[in-house]
Amino acid sequence: MNNGKQNKTVFTIFGGTGDLTYRKLLPAFYNLFSLFKMPQDFEILILGRKDYTTESYIEVIKPWLKKFTRTNYRDEVFERMSEHLRYLVVNFTEEKDYSLIKDVYDQWGGIQQRLYYLAVAPQFFAPIAFSLKKSGILDEKHSHQVMIEKPFGVDITSAQILHQQMCQAFDDDSIYRIDHYLGKEMIQNIMSVRFNNTLFEGIWNNHQIDNIQISALETVGVENRGAYYDQTGALKDMVQNHLFQILSIVGMEKPLDGSAQAIQSEQVKVLDALIPIKRGKLNEHLVLGQYTKGTSSDIAVKGYLEEENIHTDSTTETYVAMKLFIDTPRLSGVPIYIRTGKRCDRRSTEVAIQFKAPKGVLPNLLIIKIYPDEGIYLRFNAKKPGTTPEVVPVFMDFCQSCVYENRINTPEAYERLIEAAFKKDKALFTSWPQVLASWRFIDHLIDRIKEEKMIVYPYPAGQSGPSESDEMLRREERHWIDEEHG
Amino acid sequence: MNNGKQNKTVFTIFGGTGDLTYRKLLPAFYNLFSLFKMPQDFEILILGRKDYTTESYIEVIKPWLKKFTRTNYRDEVFERMSEHLRYLVVNFTEEKDYSLIKDVYDQWGGIQQRLYYLAVAPQFFAPIAFSLKKSGILDEKHSHQVMIEKPFGVDITSAQILHQQMCQAFDDDSIYRIDHYLGKEMIQNIMSVRFNNTLFEGIWNNHQIDNIQISALETVGVENRGAYYDQTGALKDMVQNHLFQILSIVGMEKPLDGSAQAIQSEQVKVLDALIPIKRGKLNEHLVLGQYTKGTSSDIAVKGYLEEENIHTDSTTETYVAMKLFIDTPRLSGVPIYIRTGKRCDRRSTEVAIQFKAPKGVLPNLLIIKIYPDEGIYLRFNAKKPGTTPEVVPVFMDFCQSCVYENRINTPEAYERLIEAAFKKDKALFTSWPQVLASWRFIDHLIDRIKEEKMIVYPYPAGQSGPSESDEMLRREERHWIDEEHG
Repeated sequence: MNNGKQNKTVFTIFGGTGDLTYRKLLPAFYNLFSLFKMPQDFEILILGRKDYTTESYIEVIKPWLKKFTRTNYRDEVFERMSEHLRYLVVNFTEEKDYSLIKDVYDQWGGIQQRLYYLAVAPQFFAPIAFSLKKSGILDEKHSHQVMIEKPFGVDITSAQILHQQMCQAFDDDSIYRIDHYLGKEMIQNIMSVRFNNTLFEGIWNNHQIDNIQISALETVGVENRGAYYDQTGALKDMVQNHLFQILSIVGMEKPLDGSAQAIQSEQVKVLDALIPIKRGKLNEHLVLGQYTKGTSSDIAVKGYLEEENIHTDSTTETYVAMKLFIDTPRLSGVPIYIRTGKRCDRRSTEVAIQFKAPKGVLPNLLIIKIYPDEGIYLRFNAKKPGTTPEVVPVFMDFCQSCVYENRINTPEAYERLIEAAFKKDKALFTSWPQVLASWRFIDHLIDRIKEEKMIVYPYPAGQSGPSESDEMLRREERHWIDEEHG
Repeated sequence: MNNGKQNKTVFTIFGGTGDLTYRKLLPAFYNLFSLFKMPQDFEILILGRKDYTTESYIEVIKPWLKKFTRTNYRDEVFERMSEHLRYLVVNFTEEKDYSLIKDVYDQWGGIQQRLYYLAVAPQFFAPIAFSLKKSGILDEKHSHQVMIEKPFGVDITSAQILHQQMCQAFDDDSIYRIDHYLGKEMIQNIMSVRFNNTLFEGIWNNHQIDNIQISALETVGVENRGAYYDQTGALKDMVQNHLFQILSIVGMEKPLDGSAQAIQSEQVKVLDALIPIKRGKLNEHLVLGQYTKGTSSDIAVKGYLEEENIHTDSTTETYVAMKLFIDTPRLSGVPIYIRTGKRCDRRSTEVAIQFKAPKGVLPNLLIIKIYPDEGIYLRFNAKKPGTTPEVVPVFMDFCQSCVYENRINTPEAYERLIEAAFKKDKALFTSWPQVLASWRFIDHLIDRIKEEKMIVYPYPAGQSGPSESDEMLRREERHWIDEEHG
């Protein structure tokens, strides 16, 4: 029933009854819809095994949206959006069921763009891609895009296999790999500060930077993800993807333009320039930790080994602190300290640049806050009033997201990523060469860790990590930048 | 009557019944005294023609101090200070009267350090110096220092003559030339910001600075100084001394150490590197103005030509705007715009550094506020929250002197200068090579102005100067940095 128009956009969600769809994807669609940011002609096809009709599914999701939309929830908006929703019972592991999907597309007709959101476990990415191809759905001559979530493999080999499999159905250009950290205004925020300010760009180099710190600390434990997490650990769950993404933006050269290609090509150069940590040097560069019982927000909490679905003798790391170097003309020789941990004393993702300092004064400090606050903290030195030559630090703490108006105007990660995807802007997604370069480094590191039987240090829940992490910096007369701002 | 001690410091004020002594010098001494910053053993000898006794003089100055001390005035403090005051009736143009002065010194005995403050018109500097020498006062083997106020000559020739004359009595090292601008925390403030911050020092060069602006605007007219001012004008009254001092600190290289010698030697290099304005290029580089009647702080005020003791057809400039270049590796090619004016729309002395900017965003801006507020304003760019790549300026406005505690802890210019003088710290004073280099440039400029019969543009009192001044910058697609901060 082609209605003559040829510009419909169809979003197809595999895994329509899962947590991600309820908590993140549908609220994101609602926000975009209520802000008139959806394509003019769109449909959302939701696929699940559960035996709902479109009508009953709409009733199921309503309370989720009421709870999780960022923009004001309004019944009449929800109703108008619901006219674009269709629920279809399919078992996505059954090839034959894909004809049902094709039928719906055929009924709609006039489709120009199709996005397939795979909100399913990673082992289903390739089977779904195969089935889409085999069913002839991908043969149709319009744009196809597939969105998948990390992990993109569990090591370099599995990542390569996954990639080859996906590429049998989609060309690489159509694969949108989500790293929701990139949805947090992060690329733009760091790039904006770096490239729009002579103040910073002029001294963003190893002559003037003393060290760089990237932190992503959480207060939560493994929650209900024990089975997955115990196989994974912080290195693979956080460092290989999120922290390396941030690192690549902090260290990159100015891209030729604002295109995804230009940005990602600079990011990859940074990851390729990461210097592997040498055999026998591991203890200088790396601290692993695992939380034990303690207190989080004044509540007694279990240790990692007491959590559900965790092996009682697990040595999986829930905390990583690492010293890295990248071999680029701009930053070679500058220590880059990164750390991430669960059950820490605070929830905070930020980048701190500490500049070199003349003798006797505090160094200039730039902190780019990413999460939960977004903003900028800058510290420099001024003369203390009076007749002594004393110098005192002065600072500004610019918190974008502390302004209510800014907060409600700031899209959430998934909202931003979905909008970027239908606009085919890949700048906020992870490219295949990035995945490859990250795994190469992490795989090599994990081999070293196993070989050297590295200790995983315990730390009580609710603290800032194992003391060995502080010690790693103290040996070099540095410290984690923690208490500097409010 | 040497009491055995040999460490008395004696301050001798020539011109003890003048405005400067009442309003500035004695209040400064009071502040230093009440803050325990005076030398342990000191006396103040005040010389004047008026027929006071020490006792009656003390009664005369009491109401002045009550009005003008920065620190809390207290009778008992004044009384204790008065024990160190002595008034002596002398005519300082009469050589024979110097024996009276010598007698007082002899009575005191035990003097280690003598400061002669010449709070008199400049034509008396040399005669007083001669008389001090001729009377044998300067023969005594302890430290002699003489403090004089600008103007140090009215051109290079008269400055050289004055210098030679003074040097027949004092060695150059003992001559303390006051530029009260240097008492305004200025040297330290600019130097502190420049040399204690990688953030600024790393980009303080012609690759990254677009232009520098130095402004000293006043709301007052010529007041009761008409006779002097009409012979002088803004170029000699403000530019040759105050503004060039600021310029030399903004443009200098980092001194080897904090000594006066090291600092002044770097300052002189900047003044020597000023590029003279070429014949025929004057209109590109210079705007002169003279205020006409207008409104100042909502009050109708006279034009310059209607002021007392001004020639009715005077072409003396009360406003100067100038574009300068200095030929140093650091700043060559960077336009340095300076301006000063009377009867302007505001009272403000500040230095603004405007950095180069990537296309499409506002440049980074650093403003060092000198007067009436002391502080720092910094503007840079951050990303506007949301999905657009829009960049917005963010700023910090750090006003040292807006904090009451800072303000009461900040010494006034004369207080600071007197303290520096008795500690023999010359960093806050103008060296002879600085005077020479400044006059060389200004003399040359004044010759050009006369030759080319340059127009002095009228501007109404209470405005920001003649429109030609704005036009000078507009031609180069720049503008005076005015409204940027609060």
